[in-house]
Amino acid sequence: MARPEQFALILAGGGGTRLWPASRRSRPKQLLNLGARESLLAATFRRLSALVGLERTLIVTAADQAQAIREALPSLPAGNLVVEPAPRNTAPAVGLAAAHVARRAGEDALLAVVPADAFIRDETQYAAVLRIALAQASQAIVTVGIKPNRPETGYGYLQTGAKLAGSAPIFQAARFVEKPDLETARAYLASGEYLWNSGMFFFSAGRFLAEARQHLPELSALLDEICVSPDPVALAQERYPRVPAISIDYGIMEKTQGIRVVPGDFGWSDVGSWAALPEIRPPDVDGNVISGDVIVKASKGSVVMAEPGAPLLGVVGVEGIVVVATRDAVLVVPKHRAQEVRSVVDELTAQGRKHLL
Amino acid sequence: MARPEQFALILAGGGGTRLWPASRRSRPKQLLNLGARESLLAATFRRLSALVGLERTLIVTAADQAQAIREALPSLPAGNLVVEPAPRNTAPAVGLAAAHVARRAGEDALLAVVPADAFIRDETQYAAVLRIALAQASQAIVTVGIKPNRPETGYGYLQTGAKLAGSAPIFQAARFVEKPDLETARAYLASGEYLWNSGMFFFSAGRFLAEARQHLPELSALLDEICVSPDPVALAQERYPRVPAISIDYGIMEKTQGIRVVPGDFGWSDVGSWAALPEIRPPDVDGNVISGDVIVKASKGSVVMAEPGAPLLGVVGVEGIVVVATRDAVLVVPKHRAQEVRSVVDELTAQGRKHLL
Repeated sequence: MARPEQFALILAGGGGTRLWPASRRSRPKQLLNLGARESLLAATFRRLSALVGLERTLIVTAADQAQAIREALPSLPAGNLVVEPAPRNTAPAVGLAAAHVARRAGEDALLAVVPADAFIRDETQYAAVLRIALAQASQAIVTVGIKPNRPETGYGYLQTGAKLAGSAPIFQAARFVEKPDLETARAYLASGEYLWNSGMFFFSAGRFLAEARQHLPELSALLDEICVSPDPVALAQERYPRVPAISIDYGIMEKTQGIRVVPGDFGWSDVGSWAALPEIRPPDVDGNVISGDVIVKASKGSVVMAEPGAPLLGVVGVEGIVVVATRDAVLVVPKHRAQEVRSVVDELTAQGRKHLL
Repeated sequence: MARPEQFALILAGGGGTRLWPASRRSRPKQLLNLGARESLLAATFRRLSALVGLERTLIVTAADQAQAIREALPSLPAGNLVVEPAPRNTAPAVGLAAAHVARRAGEDALLAVVPADAFIRDETQYAAVLRIALAQASQAIVTVGIKPNRPETGYGYLQTGAKLAGSAPIFQAARFVEKPDLETARAYLASGEYLWNSGMFFFSAGRFLAEARQHLPELSALLDEICVSPDPVALAQERYPRVPAISIDYGIMEKTQGIRVVPGDFGWSDVGSWAALPEIRPPDVDGNVISGDVIVKASKGSVVMAEPGAPLLGVVGVEGIVVVATRDAVLVVPKHRAQEVRSVVDELTAQGRKHLL
C-alpha cells in the first residue's frame, strides 16, 4: 500500500477581539505582525508547507477574510483556500476540508489540523513533534498537548493516560477538560499528567468522516454528498449554512475514544491577549516589550506598541500596563486585566462604530 | 487729583511643557481649552477686561506667540499687545509694559499683573479681591495670596504679617518662600499664616519703575529711556535682548519692603500638570475627568482626554492614570507622576522632533 499523502489544514477563521485595537474583523489576530517580521498566519503557513509541501497545505477561512488571506499568502495555491459559505465553527470547517482532501487524495490521506494564530518559538522541535503525530494518524486521532510551564487558567487541558509501547513519546489521552480555576490549574501543573490543549489534531480524512457519521449526523450527510457531488462548491454553498455550528473539540474530540497525544514543548503561545506579548517577543531589561514610535521612561513590565501611522506614544512611570496604538485607536489597560479589552469592543459595537471593529 | 487709570497686564509668555501633548511651543497652556468652552487665556482676558475695560487690558508675550494670541483674542486692541523682543523672564516683560503704561497714562496709572494661565472657579469673588488689591496699589505693591486647602509642594508660599487697620482683609506680607517640602507645607497649612503665591501683583507704573531703579539697574536704564524715547519699539528691539533675564519674584518682590497681601479664596488653580485637571473640571462619580472621543470602563480617579482628531481612546481597569491624546501624540503617566511628562519632552527635544514639541 502506498504511503498516504499528508495534508495540513490551517484554521484561519477567527475574528479575534482580544488584540484590539491591532486586531479587527477585517484584520484578525493571525494577520498581525505583532512587531515580528511575519504574521502569525504566515509563520504557520511557512512551517506547515515545509512539513507537507506547499501543494498540500490548505487553509479554511470565512468568506469575508478570504481576500485578506490570499493577499497575505501569495504563494498559497488558489485551490487550497477552502472558504466557509457561512461561519459554523470548527467541526463543519474541518469537515469541509476533510471532504476536499478525501475527493482529492482518498480517505486514507492524512490531515494535520492547526490553528493559524499560535506562536511557536522552537520550530525544529515543533516539526519533530508534528512528524510523530502524523506518523500515528493512520491508526488513531492524534493531538499535540503542550507541556505547561505555569498554572494557566485561560487554556483547556487534556489529561494523559498510559504511554504507548515504543520509543516515541505517545500517550493515550484520558480526557479533555475545560479552562480550570487557579487552584485546579495548580493541581494539574503539579501532577505532571496534564497538558494544554493546543487545538492541533491529526487524523485521516476517512476517520474524520466516520466520526462525523457517528457524532454529527447532519454535517455527515452533507460531507458524504460533497465527497461524490459533481459540484461540491455549489452544494456546500446551499447546504453548509444550515449545518449546526459546533467546535471540533465539543463535536468530536470529547466524544470519541482512543485519542492519542504527543506532548510538545516548543515555546507555544496562543497569544490570547496583549499580556501574552512577552511570550512571543523577548522583553527588555525592564521587562518591557516595546515596538514602534514610542518613548518609554521609568516603566517596568509593560507592553507599549505603536503601529505605523499611529501617534507617538509617550509612556512614563507605569508598571504592568498595556498601551497599544493604531492610526485610529489607542488601548490602555493593566496587563493582568488585558482580557477586559472586550468591554471596549462591546461598547464600540453598541455604538455601531464598525470602522473601529 | 483725578483717580488714576487702572490697567491690567496679562503675562502670556509661558512655554509650558507640563501639559504635553496638548501644550506645545506653538500652543502653550494658556491657549488650551482643556475641555472647557474657552481657553485659560480667553477666560483671563474676559475677567480682566471686565474689571478695567478692554482698552486698558494689555498682554505681554513672546514674539513667536504673538500671532497665536492675536488669533485667540480678536477683540484685543492692536496696540495692547506688548511683544518681548526676546524672552528675558517676567521682570523685564512687566517693565516693558509698565513703561508702556507710564507713557500712555502717566506714572500714577495702576497695573494689575496676572498670569494668563490660571483657572478661577468663582469669578465674582475673584473680581472683588482684585478690586480690593487695586484700591491699595497707589500706596504699596500689593499681591493676592491664595488660601491653601492642601499641603501643596508645587507652589511658592508667602507668609502674612499684621492685618492693616480697616474693614478690608489686607495684610502686611512678611516674606515669600520657595516651594516647600511636604513636612514644611503641612506646617504652613496648619499655621493659617501662609498663602500660595498666585503670581498676581498690583502697583503703579511709577512704583515699578522706581523699584527697578533700585534693584534692576540695567533694566531700569532701558525703561527710563523708553519712557521718553520718540521710538520706544525700536529702542526695545535693540536693547531689550541684552537685559539680564530675571523673574519679577526674584528681581523685585523678594527684595522690596512693605508689600501688602489680600487673601483670595476663589477656586484658583495654576493647572500645573494633568493631575490638576480635577481642580478645573469636576470629576464624575468615579473620580474621572473625561473629555473627547473616549471609552472608559472600570476605571477610577483618572484623567482621560482626547482632542478632536485624536484616535479613539479605550481605557479599561486603570486607577489614577492620565491618558491624553492629540492627533499626533499620546501620553500615559500615573497622576502622581504627571510632572514627569518632562522626560518625554526632553527625549523629543534630544531627537530633534520639533513638530511634536
